[in-house]
Amino acid sequence: MLQKGLKGVVCTQTKISDINGEQGRLIYRGYSAKELSQNHSFEEVAHLLWSGKLPNVEELQVIKQQFKEKRKLPEHVKRIIELIPESHDMLSVLRTALSAIELKNSEKVSLQDAITLTSVTPAIISYRESIQNSTPFPEERKGLDHVAYYLYMLTGEEPSTFYVRALETYMILTMEHGLNASTFSARVTSSTESDLISAITSAIGTMKGPLHGGAPSGVIELLNEVANSDNMRSCIEEKVERGEKLMGFGHRVYKTMDPRAQAIKEKLQQNKSQDDWFDLALKVEKTAIDVLEELKPGRKLYTNVEFYAAAILKELNLPNHLFTATFTASRMVGWTTHVMEQLEDNTIFRPSAEYVGPIFEENPT
Amino acid sequence: MLQKGLKGVVCTQTKISDINGEQGRLIYRGYSAKELSQNHSFEEVAHLLWSGKLPNVEELQVIKQQFKEKRKLPEHVKRIIELIPESHDMLSVLRTALSAIELKNSEKVSLQDAITLTSVTPAIISYRESIQNSTPFPEERKGLDHVAYYLYMLTGEEPSTFYVRALETYMILTMEHGLNASTFSARVTSSTESDLISAITSAIGTMKGPLHGGAPSGVIELLNEVANSDNMRSCIEEKVERGEKLMGFGHRVYKTMDPRAQAIKEKLQQNKSQDDWFDLALKVEKTAIDVLEELKPGRKLYTNVEFYAAAILKELNLPNHLFTATFTASRMVGWTTHVMEQLEDNTIFRPSAEYVGPIFEENPT
Repeated sequence: MLQKGLKGVVCTQTKISDINGEQGRLIYRGYSAKELSQNHSFEEVAHLLWSGKLPNVEELQVIKQQFKEKRKLPEHVKRIIELIPESHDMLSVLRTALSAIELKNSEKVSLQDAITLTSVTPAIISYRESIQNSTPFPEERKGLDHVAYYLYMLTGEEPSTFYVRALETYMILTMEHGLNASTFSARVTSSTESDLISAITSAIGTMKGPLHGGAPSGVIELLNEVANSDNMRSCIEEKVERGEKLMGFGHRVYKTMDPRAQAIKEKLQQNKSQDDWFDLALKVEKTAIDVLEELKPGRKLYTNVEFYAAAILKELNLPNHLFTATFTASRMVGWTTHVMEQLEDNTIFRPSAEYVGPIFEENPT
Repeated sequence: MLQKGLKGVVCTQTKISDINGEQGRLIYRGYSAKELSQNHSFEEVAHLLWSGKLPNVEELQVIKQQFKEKRKLPEHVKRIIELIPESHDMLSVLRTALSAIELKNSEKVSLQDAITLTSVTPAIISYRESIQNSTPFPEERKGLDHVAYYLYMLTGEEPSTFYVRALETYMILTMEHGLNASTFSARVTSSTESDLISAITSAIGTMKGPLHGGAPSGVIELLNEVANSDNMRSCIEEKVERGEKLMGFGHRVYKTMDPRAQAIKEKLQQNKSQDDWFDLALKVEKTAIDVLEELKPGRKLYTNVEFYAAAILKELNLPNHLFTATFTASRMVGWTTHVMEQLEDNTIFRPSAEYVGPIFEENPT
């Protein structure tokens, strides 16, 4: 039987995460990802995914310190980033730059190497940005934790606590999401007992494809289009009547509200100050759900993580071309966790293909 | 049902190649790969795999010309190769260097891009070798066809026709072999509609793993060990009695002689001159099969492609660390063909994982 795309084929067991689409629940190592994003730091949740448990006070101090020690961009990687052609987008830059990183133990997969790859990613993005924009590459800041450091590297400014927590919420919620195509490709690569860098470059290359999803650029276009229209409701009505997909609504797995969207929305609601993008997002969500109920009754559509991710990333003034890169920076934790799990009880991935071409009796001469 | 490693799961149809393990038959686009390797050039068979048909005289001229035009290593890639840490092996160098190539059309997959990646690979390997060995990087030679050029780039010398044809036989026979892990990873990456370079870097990273196989280094060790022993037969007997795997014997798929081993053996037999490695290989094959028949009657084991590949590559004086790179240089044709086929009728690869971890009612505070 042909199983194109392997939909529904269970190819591994996992203890990393569980998605319950009917209940709108995402679990990391047994805990609600939504609550983790509200009450814990990036480093804590990364520790949870990597090690299976939340760190105690001492362990947290250790892992934060390790993040800080490993964030410096090696000189040879800087030179390589300078040499990558302008036409290469940020995901291609990450693929090439991470491919050139020297890990302590390049043949085995270790937690330390996972931290290195996660920790060095902000500097790669920032260094490439500084070249492209002819802006200064921010000086190292040892004091900042990972997400604050990420934001600092992209803006050159010490970010506000609210901004850091908003981005941290998004980054925790997008760390891990089961066997999507990029995570699967990382597991396929490590199943030959290849090294961690190979698995991660596979994942990045797979993430780069437009079908992967998870990057909220399409939502920005929708929000912009609706904001610039004379009438928000009729603009959305027209789209629905034309059968256009509303970007940021609906999810392959979640049949109710995406818990990640809910968590980001709640975070943004805590901001007392003026917040144009979030206000716009709230209005568009309400209007679109009204319109869908009226025009397509019974077909429930809810906002997905991309919808509020768009609001949060615009609010932080991140340029659109950094959305997928930011997603990559957080998903690095999930990928590296899956590689470690794959190698704990490995079987090489080698499915079959059905040959449907001709077989000639003789070769041509 | 858990299907670890996806063994036996048919995840795509293909018109590229067919392997019949019982009959010992390998088919490229309907034709016997063995006969193709004996009667056709690398460029002809690459054309066959990519386009589905062997080129006529004019088409062959065109594709040979395209190979020649695209073989020059871009300056920025040279600089990047210089910067890659010494600890990175040749497969890592290929992964990083190819990741930095600028293709004409980086967003879509084209035959021209497939030729570029195949054609530029010899120069990447050669340039890295020249840095590592402090030897001169060979000057460009426009006159040589692909395999002669590959050999020239590695040795700096114009190779003999016999050597070229011997290597060409090996390279044609290892161009393509169905859904092995590296080819599968290339298809997974392109299934998100990512670019060709991403798919190829995934494949290289997957090829790099020691479980991938196809690289004959283990056979060299066996041949060396047997050659240095006092008694070839008792050396092999001891190995078999200890239950050691005889490298180069047996194949997961082929239950009779590997047609690729057969073809390479026949090619080597044409060489009238003294050929130590080949003579040794012939003797070891005969002795091992005798020993196996005596000690494990009924358990038929035949030499696989790696066995005679080892003989051919040693005969060509290629250092062991270039074996997997040479395999990569030929498999590039198969990978790029699979990417093109995947995108013709694409479905994103997204299998499932079974969650076997805990689910806690409450998060820790």
